[in-house]
Amino acid sequence: MRGATALPADPVHPADLRADLRANAAVLSGGEVLADYLHGRAGDFLRGLRLYGESGADTEAAAEAARSLRGAARRIGGTLHTYRPLLDAGWADQFRTELMWLSGTLAQEHACAARASRLLGALARLSGAVPQPRTTGAPTPTGTAAAPNPPAAGPDRTLTMGASRAAALLERQLTLARTRAHSATLQALGSSRFHAVADAVAVLASEVPLTAAAEAPAGEVLAGPAEAAERRLREAVTTLPLARAAHPYNADALIHGLAAAAAGEAQDAPWHQVRHLLRLHRYAEEVRSAGSLPDPAPIAAGRTLDHHRDAAEAAAAAANAARTPRIAPATAYALGVLHADQRHEVEAARFAFQQVWQKATVTTR
Amino acid sequence: MRGATALPADPVHPADLRADLRANAAVLSGGEVLADYLHGRAGDFLRGLRLYGESGADTEAAAEAARSLRGAARRIGGTLHTYRPLLDAGWADQFRTELMWLSGTLAQEHACAARASRLLGALARLSGAVPQPRTTGAPTPTGTAAAPNPPAAGPDRTLTMGASRAAALLERQLTLARTRAHSATLQALGSSRFHAVADAVAVLASEVPLTAAAEAPAGEVLAGPAEAAERRLREAVTTLPLARAAHPYNADALIHGLAAAAAGEAQDAPWHQVRHLLRLHRYAEEVRSAGSLPDPAPIAAGRTLDHHRDAAEAAAAAANAARTPRIAPATAYALGVLHADQRHEVEAARFAFQQVWQKATVTTR
Repeated sequence: MRGATALPADPVHPADLRADLRANAAVLSGGEVLADYLHGRAGDFLRGLRLYGESGADTEAAAEAARSLRGAARRIGGTLHTYRPLLDAGWADQFRTELMWLSGTLAQEHACAARASRLLGALARLSGAVPQPRTTGAPTPTGTAAAPNPPAAGPDRTLTMGASRAAALLERQLTLARTRAHSATLQALGSSRFHAVADAVAVLASEVPLTAAAEAPAGEVLAGPAEAAERRLREAVTTLPLARAAHPYNADALIHGLAAAAAGEAQDAPWHQVRHLLRLHRYAEEVRSAGSLPDPAPIAAGRTLDHHRDAAEAAAAAANAARTPRIAPATAYALGVLHADQRHEVEAARFAFQQVWQKATVTTR
Repeated sequence: MRGATALPADPVHPADLRADLRANAAVLSGGEVLADYLHGRAGDFLRGLRLYGESGADTEAAAEAARSLRGAARRIGGTLHTYRPLLDAGWADQFRTELMWLSGTLAQEHACAARASRLLGALARLSGAVPQPRTTGAPTPTGTAAAPNPPAAGPDRTLTMGASRAAALLERQLTLARTRAHSATLQALGSSRFHAVADAVAVLASEVPLTAAAEAPAGEVLAGPAEAAERRLREAVTTLPLARAAHPYNADALIHGLAAAAAGEAQDAPWHQVRHLLRLHRYAEEVRSAGSLPDPAPIAAGRTLDHHRDAAEAAAAAANAARTPRIAPATAYALGVLHADQRHEVEAARFAFQQVWQKATVTTR
């Protein structure tokens, strides 16, 4: 049996070591399993950072590297949160705050790009330009009723022009937001705050400040925090209007579509919270499963709530664009249709989550 | 056994006569059963006309009388169409054209009122003013997520103001349309064309021009035309994208939401056609069943397609209002949201139709 700090810093565990960890789950201490997971994610983080630095003008490689950095930062942060009782609490809390700042900053640029692509794709679909299937909701068979679209004539032209103007407006606004987010990322990665985070992660690759409680066998000591994370998730799910979401076309997501933005946000908040807790639950299980194949149910459920979040933010962006001064009525009309369309994707995502959740109870292992 | 022309003109058949008709379905001729049904509907028509004349300033009584007039006119017209082989064809075709003109004219006023109520109700729901449930789609449990709405603040106010302006605009436009439809109804009811229809209906209450084929027993001679009506319905249903409609949130109904109006209309047409054929089927069965309780399945299916039609027309009215010159962008935005909302009700109605159709095969009796 190796001590936690003696584990290799290399983020990719050789298959034999992972098998070793699983086989010895009962013999290894909680601290050893926890440290092994954190070492792995620290390695992912440092490799992502190196790849980001090497990506240069290759925006695709940069995006992939940033994605990997974000994923590692979120996993480390989540682990520090869930398994806090086994870690130096002050260190864990402070470190986690910094990791959340970092992953939040890194997420912005990606979110802007994804939002632009979602909204412009939806506008193309709504104009009949592209018979593009919807991204969320239940799977749909091919061979749809979407016929090629006749050219607009007479008074129709005003409204179809609105769609292209709305697309131009959104593209302008979201490109600007993306450029800003990109600058913010570059600024963050050059800051002393970031260097302190990177240093702390590098230390994590070799040493994890564990408490005495972490010395107990992994099987005993990891179960409590992991089950607490799952309990928090289940409790949050009980607050969701799932019985209502199970009835398609309930029109709930749009019920405040023309009310104050705060009303829509209040309605979405519990779903966003479940998305957050689902992620913490998944990461907590990753720690315990020590590299074995993850349970697909929380991943599928999480994906529906990712769509929920993306559609909600896209709907807000459409409403926001409609507040631009001096836009043409036809542009505003197109943005209204787009907003409602995205709010229906919000509703579709809730329906899909309910279906996934009902089918698969998230297993405790 | 009484001859067809000897039946009482009174539209409400005494219960014993109806029972008599049913019991003797095998013995009565097709012409007798057909004439009995037409006598009944002619009586309904004449009573509706009398009540309309007596309604005066009581708009509710007038609406009820007009509804009864329309229903009788549609049933007589449908019967002339389906059972044409048993009737003087030239007379049936010409009479049916006149009845369709009349029921079409009478329907306008009611449609304008219903459309205004649907659109203003939807706007109230979208503004969060009224936690009003949707009218179409699957049944939904009570106790919804619709919380009372916080007052709009800051930039939100522009968009919430849009909702009330859109409501004012729609109310103005639909009130004008309703007033015009009311004038058209009064003009139609005072026309010599109408008097000719009323005279023909009055004749129908005592005499129906039957062909020699109608002398055969009802059981034999009514089946062919009734089954043909059902076959036309079933064939039309096979052209509908039902497999697609069965997947909620497929976003089909809005796929051309920002394209030319003709694209949306082309998509709706087969559903409207099924609605029309479903009605003809129902009336054809009413004739055959001679007053016994109607099959609830076609009625339920028809109701979903009524919603489909109403939502499609409401969506078109919202889009049309957005073409009003010099409206504020916020008004146009609200109309865009409203249009998309109603197109989603169209989609919800297709889903509901698919559910009803799948559950209950329309029985031939």
